[in-house]
Amino acid sequence: MSNNWNMNKATSEAAILSISLDRSSKIPLQTQLSHALRELVHTSRLRSGARLPSSRNLAQELGVSRVTTTAVYEQLVAEGYLEGRRGSGVFIAADLPSLPVRTAKDGSPDSRQTLPLNDPLVPFDVGFPDLETFPYREWTRIHDRIWRAPNAGILGRPPAMGFGPLRTAIAQHLNEWRGIQCSPGQIVVTSGLVEAVELISKAAFAAGDTVLVEDPGHQVMANALAGSGVTCNPVRVDAQGFNLSSGEQAHLCASAVAVTPSRQYPLGMTLSLTRRLELLDWAKNCDGFILEDDYDGEFRYQGQPLPAMMSLDDSERVIYIGSFSKVMFPALRLGYMIVPYRLQKNVAAILGRIGPKAALHAQPVLAEFIASGSFATHIRRMRRLYAERQKALLNALHTHASGLLSADPETSGMHLVAELGPGLAGRMSDVEVSARAHEAGLRLAPLSNFYFGPAARQGLVMGYAAFPPQALSDGVIRLVAALCD
Amino acid sequence: MSNNWNMNKATSEAAILSISLDRSSKIPLQTQLSHALRELVHTSRLRSGARLPSSRNLAQELGVSRVTTTAVYEQLVAEGYLEGRRGSGVFIAADLPSLPVRTAKDGSPDSRQTLPLNDPLVPFDVGFPDLETFPYREWTRIHDRIWRAPNAGILGRPPAMGFGPLRTAIAQHLNEWRGIQCSPGQIVVTSGLVEAVELISKAAFAAGDTVLVEDPGHQVMANALAGSGVTCNPVRVDAQGFNLSSGEQAHLCASAVAVTPSRQYPLGMTLSLTRRLELLDWAKNCDGFILEDDYDGEFRYQGQPLPAMMSLDDSERVIYIGSFSKVMFPALRLGYMIVPYRLQKNVAAILGRIGPKAALHAQPVLAEFIASGSFATHIRRMRRLYAERQKALLNALHTHASGLLSADPETSGMHLVAELGPGLAGRMSDVEVSARAHEAGLRLAPLSNFYFGPAARQGLVMGYAAFPPQALSDGVIRLVAALCD
Repeated sequence: MSNNWNMNKATSEAAILSISLDRSSKIPLQTQLSHALRELVHTSRLRSGARLPSSRNLAQELGVSRVTTTAVYEQLVAEGYLEGRRGSGVFIAADLPSLPVRTAKDGSPDSRQTLPLNDPLVPFDVGFPDLETFPYREWTRIHDRIWRAPNAGILGRPPAMGFGPLRTAIAQHLNEWRGIQCSPGQIVVTSGLVEAVELISKAAFAAGDTVLVEDPGHQVMANALAGSGVTCNPVRVDAQGFNLSSGEQAHLCASAVAVTPSRQYPLGMTLSLTRRLELLDWAKNCDGFILEDDYDGEFRYQGQPLPAMMSLDDSERVIYIGSFSKVMFPALRLGYMIVPYRLQKNVAAILGRIGPKAALHAQPVLAEFIASGSFATHIRRMRRLYAERQKALLNALHTHASGLLSADPETSGMHLVAELGPGLAGRMSDVEVSARAHEAGLRLAPLSNFYFGPAARQGLVMGYAAFPPQALSDGVIRLVAALCD
Repeated sequence: MSNNWNMNKATSEAAILSISLDRSSKIPLQTQLSHALRELVHTSRLRSGARLPSSRNLAQELGVSRVTTTAVYEQLVAEGYLEGRRGSGVFIAADLPSLPVRTAKDGSPDSRQTLPLNDPLVPFDVGFPDLETFPYREWTRIHDRIWRAPNAGILGRPPAMGFGPLRTAIAQHLNEWRGIQCSPGQIVVTSGLVEAVELISKAAFAAGDTVLVEDPGHQVMANALAGSGVTCNPVRVDAQGFNLSSGEQAHLCASAVAVTPSRQYPLGMTLSLTRRLELLDWAKNCDGFILEDDYDGEFRYQGQPLPAMMSLDDSERVIYIGSFSKVMFPALRLGYMIVPYRLQKNVAAILGRIGPKAALHAQPVLAEFIASGSFATHIRRMRRLYAERQKALLNALHTHASGLLSADPETSGMHLVAELGPGLAGRMSDVEVSARAHEAGLRLAPLSNFYFGPAARQGLVMGYAAFPPQALSDGVIRLVAALCD
C-alpha cells in the first residue's frame, strides 16, 4: 500500500510536471490547466487517490498565480474529478469510476479543418433560379431597415404558423396572381416542400396509409412521404398528366394523391381541366386529399397559368404547396402551404408540439419584399429571362446537338426534357449520357432516375433558368464533345 | 332542343352582360375577364354548349380591345373551358364535366385580412434570451456585407450538412469553450432540436424503438421522438439528474437515452461525473446512443461548464445537440448537432433524400459573427446579465413573495424553478397558480406540466433571461396580487 502510494506519488508528480501551458494562446491559462488535469485523469496518468500538490506549490511549479490554481481545483472538485480531504490536501477522487481511456486511434479530430464553400452551379443543374439578377441590394436594404433596430412585433414569440404579415402578403399574391381565394389564416410558412409534406402526413395520414404519386415524379416528394411512414404508390403519367384510372384501382384505398398540376415534374405537361375535376371528384367520394405541388407555377411565359386545383376545390380537399426558394434564391429556404379549414386545427396542434422549422429571420423581410411589389417585378423579369434562356437552350441543341438530343419548346418552367436522338438512342442510355456529362463537368439528370420502376422513356432533364445563353450554348458544345469521344 | 338552345343563349347573354371590369384595379383587364368567365362556368351560369359572342362583339360590349378578348378566348380554350368550332364560333366546352358549384357557404375567404405581429414576451416566459442587448447593428452590418453582392461560394448549391465555414466556426468554438474535440465534418447545421432529433431517429432508430427520456423533462424532445415513431420511456430524475438504475430495467431494451447533462431541463441540476460515466458504459455495453441536449450549456455564471458527455465519449455513442436560438435570438432558428463518425454516412444519406431544413441565408452571417469574436463577446455579456437578472428575480421573490414562492440560486441557466411556499402549498396547485398568472398577463409554466406521469413535485418554471430587473420585480408583485385576490 505504501509502495503503491509512493509509486502513485512519483507518477503523479511526473504527470504534473508534464503539463505545459501555452502563454501565447488565446485560451486562458485556467482553461488550459483544468483541461490538462482532466486529460491526465482520462488517460490514467493520474489515478484515484493520487495526491496533488497544494495550490500554492502547483502555482509555483507552473509559474501561474495562485488564484488560477485555486480556481481550477475548485472547478475540478465541483466536477467530481478531485476531492479535498480536510487538512490533508487535494486528491484524485476515490470513487472515480474507471474512466474511458481515450486513445487517438484515428488521430484527434482537427476542429480547425477548413470546409469548402458551396459548390458552384454548373449547366444544366435543375431547380435553380437565376442567381445573378436577384435584387440583393433591395433585399439587404429591407433586411437592414427591419433588423438594425428590430421592434417588439418582430422580436416577440415567433408564431408557429409563420409571421402574420408574411401570411397576408402570400394570400394576397396568390389571389391576384393565381386566382386562389384563401384567407391568410390558412397559410402556413414552412422551410419548404419536405416540411409541408411531413406536417400534412402527421395531420392527415396514419402510418401505412397509401398516397398515389406521379411516375415519373418528384423523388423528394416521395422521399418525404416515405420518411413520414406513408406508402407511396406510383401511378404512370400519360400525355395529359396524372391519370387516376391508370392506377389499377390503387386509388380505391389511397388516402391522398400528390400531383404537380400546373407543370408535371419533370415531364412538363399541364394537367387538363377534365383530369383536375376527376381528381377532385375522387377526393370528395373517397374522403381523400390532394397535395397540389405548384413548384414552378409562377413561371409561365405565354398565356396565364391554369387555375390552381385549390381554386376549383369546394370541399376542402386540396392542400396547395408553394416555394420561394425557386422564385427568389435557394438560400432562403422558405415555402408555404395553404391548409383547408378542416385540417387547420390538426396542423396547428402539431406545430404547437414540435414547433416550426422555418426561421422567422427572413420572414419580415420577405413580407415587405412582396408587399412593396418587388416580388411581382422580379417574377415578371424572370419570366422574360427564362423564356429567352429556354430559346437559347433549344437553339443550342438544334445547332450543336442535332441528331443527338432534341427538345420541344414549353410555355413555362425552368427546365426541358431532351429526348435522345437517333445518334444516341440504342447506343447509350440516359444514365450513361449523364455519367459522360458529369465527367465533362456538367450535370444532366437522366429521366430514368425520375421513374420509380423501369423507365418508360429515356431523356435528360436540363435546367436552363440559372444559366446565361452563352453558358447554355457552351454547355451543349462541351456535352456533345463528351458524347462523341 | 332548340328551346333549350334559345334559353341557353338568353341566359348566357345575360351572364356575359353581368361581367363588370374594374378599370381602376391593378389587375389587368385580361385577367379580370378570364377570371369572370371561369366564374360564370363554375357557378353554372354558363353551361356546356353555350355559345359565346365573337371576340369582336365581346370587345365592343365590354369596351376593351379585341386583343384582350382574343387572348382570353385562347387562354380558356387552352384550359379546356371553351372550344372553338371551325366557322361557327366559340362555345363552352361540350365535354366539360359537371363543375363543382362553388357556394359562399362560410363567406369568401378574405385574402387581405390582417394578422397580428408576434406576441410580445411577458414575464416569466421560458427559453428566451435577452432580446434587447443583441448587437443587431453588427449583425446587419455583416449581413449587408455578405448579401449585397453575394459571391458564388455562397450562391452555389447549398450543402446538405450546412455552410462549410459555419461548421468550422462551430467546431472551433466548441473546442475552445466546451472542451469538445470534433472535426467540422461531424457538424450538421439544423433548424433546431426537433430537426436534429428527427434526423437521428431516421438514422439510428427503427419504428417502435424505445428511447429513455428524463421525467420531468423537455416535452419538445419527447414530442419530436414520438413524432418520429419512437416510443419514449420516461425515467425519473433524482437529485443527481438522470438515473439509469431507476429505469426499472427499461434501459435493457432501449436504443438511446436523451439527457440534458449540463443543466437538467427543467430542474437545473448538473449530471454528476459518475452518472455520466455510467451512461457511457451503458451505451457501450448495450449498443445504445446518448442524445446530449446542451440547451443552455453556454450560460454558466460561476466556474466553467462541466465537460460535455461528448468529450468523455471514446466509443462514438454521443450525439451532441446545441442551439443558437437560445444564445442569440430565437428568430434565427439555427442549431447544430455533432454526429459520431459511425452515424455520419446515414445522416448524410437522409439529408440527401429529404434535404436540410435550416436556411442557408443566415449561415454565412453567423459564421462571420462567430469567427470575428462577436459571438464570444455576446456570450460573456449575457452571462453577466443573466447572473444579475437571476439575482433580481431571487430578490423579488424574497421581498414580495415570501411564504408564497421561493427559489434557490443556480450557477447557470435562464430560468429558475420556484417552490410553492406554505402560503400556497395545499391551497393551490402549480397549474392553478399558472392559470391565475395567465389572467394577470404573466406566463409561468407549472412544473407538473413537465412530468409525463403524475407530478412528483409542484413548482413554477420562471424564465428571467429576457427581462430587466424592474420587469422581473414588477412581475412578481403582479403575480402576488393575482394569487392573493
